[in-house]
Amino acid sequence: MRLQYRNLDKTKAFATLKKLSTRLPSLKELLTPRRIASCSIPAAGGLTYNCAAKLVTNEVLNALRQLAREQQLIAKYKDLYNGGIANRGENRMVLHHLTRGRLGKDVFHDGKNLRTFYKGQLRKIRAFCGKVHAGEIRGSTGKRFRTVVQIGIGGSDLGPRALYLALDQYARERKLLRMQARFISNVDPDDTNGVLAGVDLETTLFILVSKSGTTQETLANERLVKAKMASARIRGMNPDKHMIAVTSETSPLAKSSRKKGGMPAFFIDDFIGGRYSSTSAVGGAVLSLAFGPDVFAEILAGAHEADELAREPNLLKNAALMDALIGVWERNFLRHPTTAVLPYSQALLRFPAHLQQLDMESNGKSVNINNRRLAYSTGPIVFGEPGTNGQHSFYQLLHQGTDVVPLQFVGFRKAQTRCDIDVEGSTSQTKLDANLAAQVVAFATGKKDKNRNKSFAGERPSSLIYGETLTPRALGALLAHFENKVMFQGFIWNINSFDQEGVQLGKVLTKEVLAGAADKRLAAYAAMLGVPQTNVST
Amino acid sequence: MRLQYRNLDKTKAFATLKKLSTRLPSLKELLTPRRIASCSIPAAGGLTYNCAAKLVTNEVLNALRQLAREQQLIAKYKDLYNGGIANRGENRMVLHHLTRGRLGKDVFHDGKNLRTFYKGQLRKIRAFCGKVHAGEIRGSTGKRFRTVVQIGIGGSDLGPRALYLALDQYARERKLLRMQARFISNVDPDDTNGVLAGVDLETTLFILVSKSGTTQETLANERLVKAKMASARIRGMNPDKHMIAVTSETSPLAKSSRKKGGMPAFFIDDFIGGRYSSTSAVGGAVLSLAFGPDVFAEILAGAHEADELAREPNLLKNAALMDALIGVWERNFLRHPTTAVLPYSQALLRFPAHLQQLDMESNGKSVNINNRRLAYSTGPIVFGEPGTNGQHSFYQLLHQGTDVVPLQFVGFRKAQTRCDIDVEGSTSQTKLDANLAAQVVAFATGKKDKNRNKSFAGERPSSLIYGETLTPRALGALLAHFENKVMFQGFIWNINSFDQEGVQLGKVLTKEVLAGAADKRLAAYAAMLGVPQTNVST
Repeated sequence: MRLQYRNLDKTKAFATLKKLSTRLPSLKELLTPRRIASCSIPAAGGLTYNCAAKLVTNEVLNALRQLAREQQLIAKYKDLYNGGIANRGENRMVLHHLTRGRLGKDVFHDGKNLRTFYKGQLRKIRAFCGKVHAGEIRGSTGKRFRTVVQIGIGGSDLGPRALYLALDQYARERKLLRMQARFISNVDPDDTNGVLAGVDLETTLFILVSKSGTTQETLANERLVKAKMASARIRGMNPDKHMIAVTSETSPLAKSSRKKGGMPAFFIDDFIGGRYSSTSAVGGAVLSLAFGPDVFAEILAGAHEADELAREPNLLKNAALMDALIGVWERNFLRHPTTAVLPYSQALLRFPAHLQQLDMESNGKSVNINNRRLAYSTGPIVFGEPGTNGQHSFYQLLHQGTDVVPLQFVGFRKAQTRCDIDVEGSTSQTKLDANLAAQVVAFATGKKDKNRNKSFAGERPSSLIYGETLTPRALGALLAHFENKVMFQGFIWNINSFDQEGVQLGKVLTKEVLAGAADKRLAAYAAMLGVPQTNVST
Repeated sequence: MRLQYRNLDKTKAFATLKKLSTRLPSLKELLTPRRIASCSIPAAGGLTYNCAAKLVTNEVLNALRQLAREQQLIAKYKDLYNGGIANRGENRMVLHHLTRGRLGKDVFHDGKNLRTFYKGQLRKIRAFCGKVHAGEIRGSTGKRFRTVVQIGIGGSDLGPRALYLALDQYARERKLLRMQARFISNVDPDDTNGVLAGVDLETTLFILVSKSGTTQETLANERLVKAKMASARIRGMNPDKHMIAVTSETSPLAKSSRKKGGMPAFFIDDFIGGRYSSTSAVGGAVLSLAFGPDVFAEILAGAHEADELAREPNLLKNAALMDALIGVWERNFLRHPTTAVLPYSQALLRFPAHLQQLDMESNGKSVNINNRRLAYSTGPIVFGEPGTNGQHSFYQLLHQGTDVVPLQFVGFRKAQTRCDIDVEGSTSQTKLDANLAAQVVAFATGKKDKNRNKSFAGERPSSLIYGETLTPRALGALLAHFENKVMFQGFIWNINSFDQEGVQLGKVLTKEVLAGAADKRLAAYAAMLGVPQTNVST
């Protein structure tokens, strides 16, 4: 199929959807038990996506189906994983799907089979983990490694951190936790000092993660960590023997790693975007060290299953596609600028922060793939916290505020840990799930009261992803579900979801400030914040 | 002064501001070095609030000044702290200011002087801490308490947790850390089990925090903790000797605490809203145990200083008032539905989550104080993460997305910890601050590029709160700044910022689900999530 790239507002479905958005039924009335039963889409990893409580009629669904066809969503996905230049501005392929499995053709770059390359890195990681876990590779003072600390920021931090936290209790309960993991990200020295205050340097292995090998924050933190190790004055301590790297083969980090010899570097390449790198060596090293390579393999299997399902052209069988289309419906036609992710699972406490990056960095764009300014809204603002915590916090606004926030609930029938007790007739897990069920209905249907302050308008749409328990496989599927959703939305909006030019200006101006800013506005702010302005004559 | 309550759209300033919003200059041009120098307002705790990069002209400022007068903001504040019924719907006074100092008259309830009452609780906490820290009060097996675990949710969790994390490194560095603190909030048993997996039960003191003494999550967690303690089969372990309470004097918790004897309960009352309770015994117990009562007293002193400053009628000398008015300008006239809080301080990592609750639960309302539906927007959606982390995440959308998000930066000249090194000519702290200075200017001024994908429109407003270092005093001032800002905005919108009726429906429906929901929609979701539906005949 020849791919065509057109803006959303040039599709026929756009006009249809616009018309439909002016004559909608009430969600209260739409949400019948029958609809709830019929709106479940089986997703990967044993998960199910249910969109009964979304304001989507059959007519809307038909128009969304047409939109999917017009924007050639499945064909563009296939083109992407088969090695099309989906990141056009940077002239790059987009191959994170290949880190977990092959969906289509072999993909080559400079004669190298990339699936083989990514798999090869994971094999190297597996072998390395084996030696670390067996005590064959040890710290420089002869002690076994007990802790792994990832030093990375953005994509090298949020995804792996969210996944680690998501499986920490799961692994502990099942005696799978091999090493505890910690994360240093911020260039704020308090972050590094705080993390180091809680670990034993002799038994700690650091992973330096930077694709380019030039990330300012990460390199500064590497040096700070090494300085702390040197100043600890531990006999025999050799910081280089406590530091491995995940980077690209051509980066300065890879070179310096080779020079020093000894500790390995694991590689990714330009076709794995930072925010899509959790299933590459970026997540692979830290998660395999923490939980063992088999747990990481399960995450990959769940993600791959989700990737396979995402090829399904039938909307009613493709949860990521449905989710993407409903998101665009809510953003561009119902005109809701934000969306909240609300996992009823404490293990997913940092998953919303990862999705915030994934979504907002991918689709927070104002130009189409040909760099023309768009006349419609793109990626929404994403935020969220676990339930039930959020219920006692910002849900007040979600229920009774003046704006509507579409919601994405996530929940599991069973907890990861087994210890639970009955209090007043129900376990904690049952209470958790009862709260979740109650919220979906409360948001949709509301409740009238003579006292308007106790009245709930309802009409607040949500969808629910649920499963049996948050296993590594379910977690991988959940991760890939959202990655694929965001990708489909990028196709619909006709934008490049895989670059991030919006981060560049800050970098340039930071350098100016550090060099002693010539721009007097920069200098003024720098002075307030105590940044030495040596080059400035005032 | 006789107080009058009118809706925002009934003020004269409303029409003026509406007109002004249609003919605004460019922020790029507005932001001159001179303006930057002149837009600083000294705030409490050594902080400064600078609003140079806000799209506020002198005309707008005049109209905002008029709005402050028309809505009688200072008079309403004075009425509030002097014991007016500011929480009208619940017929309650709003007295969190009184927990840190007296601003006006003595306030009595049932003949009790409430300042004396709040101070008395803190004195009791101080005495208790002295005994715990000295080892006079010990765990039931004779060991000293080393860890304190707060069990609470919402207002009993987010504020105290954010403040604890904000001072953890500060205290550690200065040898002020007396006990480590942990927090259990979610009814998800994985939360409780996860926290308990990381503490030694024999040396752990739990604080049960619930004003009503009936919070479902907190009571379930208390029982789960006690069950874990019992099942640990430690000789001599008596869970009751490891559990104190913060609650209201009339709550079931207070009664059961008295019955058991021994361990104390500390009290708050109905005039301290949960989200405003960090400076009451709710934050006082855990923070005094962790850092010592003197550190907590410093937090109170900073907050009280901010409260005093907030009485200043001159806009140019009242940071909280200015912040509030600009927020309303951006929300109702520039029509931005969201706002982000971006602290360049890792210590403030959970401060945005606290502000999210504070702001969204207080001002996410659709009716005025007389329960009439409003025709304008109220509280915005609030989110945020620390910088520079966010720069590598969602800043892409902030810079180049289709929506404008007003920003609140926070930064400090010095880190809390001393260990820092020079890498390529600058320390990590200098890099952190250079990034912050660069971002303020980048958002406001943007940058043109022939390649539209590399172009930055700019025109994205921000303000900056900055100080020397994040001390307990500065932290208290920062906390109170936002509390007072949110309060002023509530006055402007003519809403009740101190109730939370929006959380009730969920509670009611949860009970229905747990009792076996008669509503078939509730039952359908409950079934998906595996909640036993015993009462349902299908």
